[in-house]
Amino acid sequence: MFNEEERKYFLSKLIDFLKIPSVSATGEGIREASSWLKEFMKELGIKSEIVETNGHPVIYGEINNGGNKTLLVYNHYDVQPVDPLNEWKYPPFSATIDGDYIYARGASDNKGTLMARLLALTKYKGNLNFKFVIEGEEEIGSIHLPEFVEKNKEKLNADGVIMEGAGLDSKGRPMIVLGVKGLVYVEIIVKTGERDVHSSNAPVIYNPVWELIKILNSIYDGEKVKLRGFYDNIEKLPLETERLLESYDLDIETFKKSLGAYELKYKDKESVVYSLFTEPTCNIDGIVARYIGEGSKTIVPSIAKVKIDFRLVPNQDPVKIYNLLVDHLNHFKNVKIINHGLEKPVRTSPNTKIVKAMVSSAIKVYQTDPVILPNSAGTQPMGVFYDLGIREIVSAIGVGTPSSNAHAPNENIKIENFYKAIQHSLEFYKEYEKE
Amino acid sequence: MFNEEERKYFLSKLIDFLKIPSVSATGEGIREASSWLKEFMKELGIKSEIVETNGHPVIYGEINNGGNKTLLVYNHYDVQPVDPLNEWKYPPFSATIDGDYIYARGASDNKGTLMARLLALTKYKGNLNFKFVIEGEEEIGSIHLPEFVEKNKEKLNADGVIMEGAGLDSKGRPMIVLGVKGLVYVEIIVKTGERDVHSSNAPVIYNPVWELIKILNSIYDGEKVKLRGFYDNIEKLPLETERLLESYDLDIETFKKSLGAYELKYKDKESVVYSLFTEPTCNIDGIVARYIGEGSKTIVPSIAKVKIDFRLVPNQDPVKIYNLLVDHLNHFKNVKIINHGLEKPVRTSPNTKIVKAMVSSAIKVYQTDPVILPNSAGTQPMGVFYDLGIREIVSAIGVGTPSSNAHAPNENIKIENFYKAIQHSLEFYKEYEKE
Repeated sequence: MFNEEERKYFLSKLIDFLKIPSVSATGEGIREASSWLKEFMKELGIKSEIVETNGHPVIYGEINNGGNKTLLVYNHYDVQPVDPLNEWKYPPFSATIDGDYIYARGASDNKGTLMARLLALTKYKGNLNFKFVIEGEEEIGSIHLPEFVEKNKEKLNADGVIMEGAGLDSKGRPMIVLGVKGLVYVEIIVKTGERDVHSSNAPVIYNPVWELIKILNSIYDGEKVKLRGFYDNIEKLPLETERLLESYDLDIETFKKSLGAYELKYKDKESVVYSLFTEPTCNIDGIVARYIGEGSKTIVPSIAKVKIDFRLVPNQDPVKIYNLLVDHLNHFKNVKIINHGLEKPVRTSPNTKIVKAMVSSAIKVYQTDPVILPNSAGTQPMGVFYDLGIREIVSAIGVGTPSSNAHAPNENIKIENFYKAIQHSLEFYKEYEKE
Repeated sequence: MFNEEERKYFLSKLIDFLKIPSVSATGEGIREASSWLKEFMKELGIKSEIVETNGHPVIYGEINNGGNKTLLVYNHYDVQPVDPLNEWKYPPFSATIDGDYIYARGASDNKGTLMARLLALTKYKGNLNFKFVIEGEEEIGSIHLPEFVEKNKEKLNADGVIMEGAGLDSKGRPMIVLGVKGLVYVEIIVKTGERDVHSSNAPVIYNPVWELIKILNSIYDGEKVKLRGFYDNIEKLPLETERLLESYDLDIETFKKSLGAYELKYKDKESVVYSLFTEPTCNIDGIVARYIGEGSKTIVPSIAKVKIDFRLVPNQDPVKIYNLLVDHLNHFKNVKIINHGLEKPVRTSPNTKIVKAMVSSAIKVYQTDPVILPNSAGTQPMGVFYDLGIREIVSAIGVGTPSSNAHAPNENIKIENFYKAIQHSLEFYKEYEKE
């Protein structure tokens, strides 16, 4: 693949980058990391700039290689906080090599992947044009990304997009994820009075928790969302796409253990996988009304709050569903709804050029069939690129594995997987250019 | 009524007592107040002692006047905390006289009442025997009172009990409350896993909040408790007792405002009053599951907790109802129940000697018919005395009014109401002896 000198150079650049903290939650190192990245991109021949937002900046870059086709590469340079610090074997920003692995916060999520995609350019001689959008707020909800994309929509036109990669499964097979679930995240607040009162008054005043439960019962019956219109427009998974799920690597017991769950809703792998990737949900993230301290206090609370996330599947429309909810809540008294974020579900067809190029390049590099998923179980900001009119968006090429400890202490990657990801990037650029 | 010298003495003793803080929540002044009280009771000829418990002590006293009849007097010497301190016009333990009023924490609840009952003994020459149980934990839930009563049950035998008094209504009429609602206070905890996980897993794992809501729906339908057997044994209010409710002083708008409630469940006074005093309830005091911070976090929580108080009416049995609940919860998985307290509902017949004596003495002192309620809307520890076999228990003779600010800043009483309560105590002792 690459010779010793090339490998040394690739690894040294990765280590340099991993040593710079870039914790978006606290802001630690964000400025240093963004400057380093812009300079490094310039070294690679990318016309790059730091674009300020109302939060952490986006690094934007372009290469015009004179071709007809443009690939937009989305990544992020920010990382999760490091706590609990005492559980790390090596300091999280020391980028310590131990055997075949390198340990650092961000190694897997997603500095390794970002560097692989950039370093592949040192070997790329083709005509594909590139645009890079590298944000600094992915780990805190991509707060200002939609604004950035909206402001620069002309500039960001492209034929295809590769998102932060899904990495490799436990069998070492590369994952290609063709989309994301969407999201409607709301908070519902019921306020029945100005203050909590003694619960001897319970016979004659409304309890906001019981009122909230009435509302929750009217929204969800424990299995299905009851909002009329919620399930409209759901795209039936084409049989060939549904079949893709069969190759997904999941062992029921291992999965259950990894979640710390006492029970799964389904007993067989097929149902778990099908449900995970194709079902919309109505999940309660949190609920609260006083009194929640130790022991007992006899009150009727005055306020009850719940946070709910609905995950959506193609082609549910988050704006439409949010409006259904608002209309529905109009039937109840003393209720307020807060919109904490809407994200569009996206699903790219397996028959697109970008998927074909991704599959053939993956087979070439990993010598095995990749695992293809119609979409992830979670949400990434794919919708902002979909809204630009781009219809070839995939999440693929990544350095992480299920044991990479993303978001946890001792985050790490196998160094060989880093080189493989560089090679995969390079092969993909070549294939995509040809398609 | 009383001459100038007597009034001066009564007031000076009240002031001495009010100046001693006795905040059970913090323990401030508890020892000093209990010693002062024991000494003062001795001055009055009461054989008294400080009885230690695992919390704050009970002051127990006895007078044997050689009669056939014994009255047990229940009060408490502890008070609520004083915060918010900056809202007080006078320091809460200064016992400042302003016009016709005296301001102090505890003046109304219930040092004024306690002192009135004790000071009446200076004028009492009859043969009624007395027992005094004056606890120091009423404001923190009478934690060790049942234990004290259980340990001393032989000693506490009596014909009747007067509890902490209900005071006067807004029209100045004395209140006589013949009983209390009971209580079952529980916490229900649903735990579906070892830790919170990312909400992309929501399609396949159980959300403890939705599971808890299923349980809550199975317990209460928004109007009625669904536990089979919950409404068994409820005593139908005799018509003559129901009629008593008609004289209860309540203005819908004023009441609503005093609670800070946006709406009452009933529009007419009769329904509000009837419901308040005769209906059992299932009230949620608090509910919590993560995430309850600002903004959004996409998780499936692992634990959800709810605190519920059921108020019971005669003759619902708190132990039986608690057991119904435990049996019911056995039908659900991953559920735990915590018992935070059971209290028996009590209702003394209006045809008892104690009620007759209380009514006739009240008319004599206040020159008006008293307001009689079959029971309070809340709970007092009457059940512990009922369990001794005593069937004449009332809550009456008190110094407070609706504007006394019990539990709030600027607690106060009208000094004249203090003298009236002494007189009422005295007349009641005389009448009860005769009955």
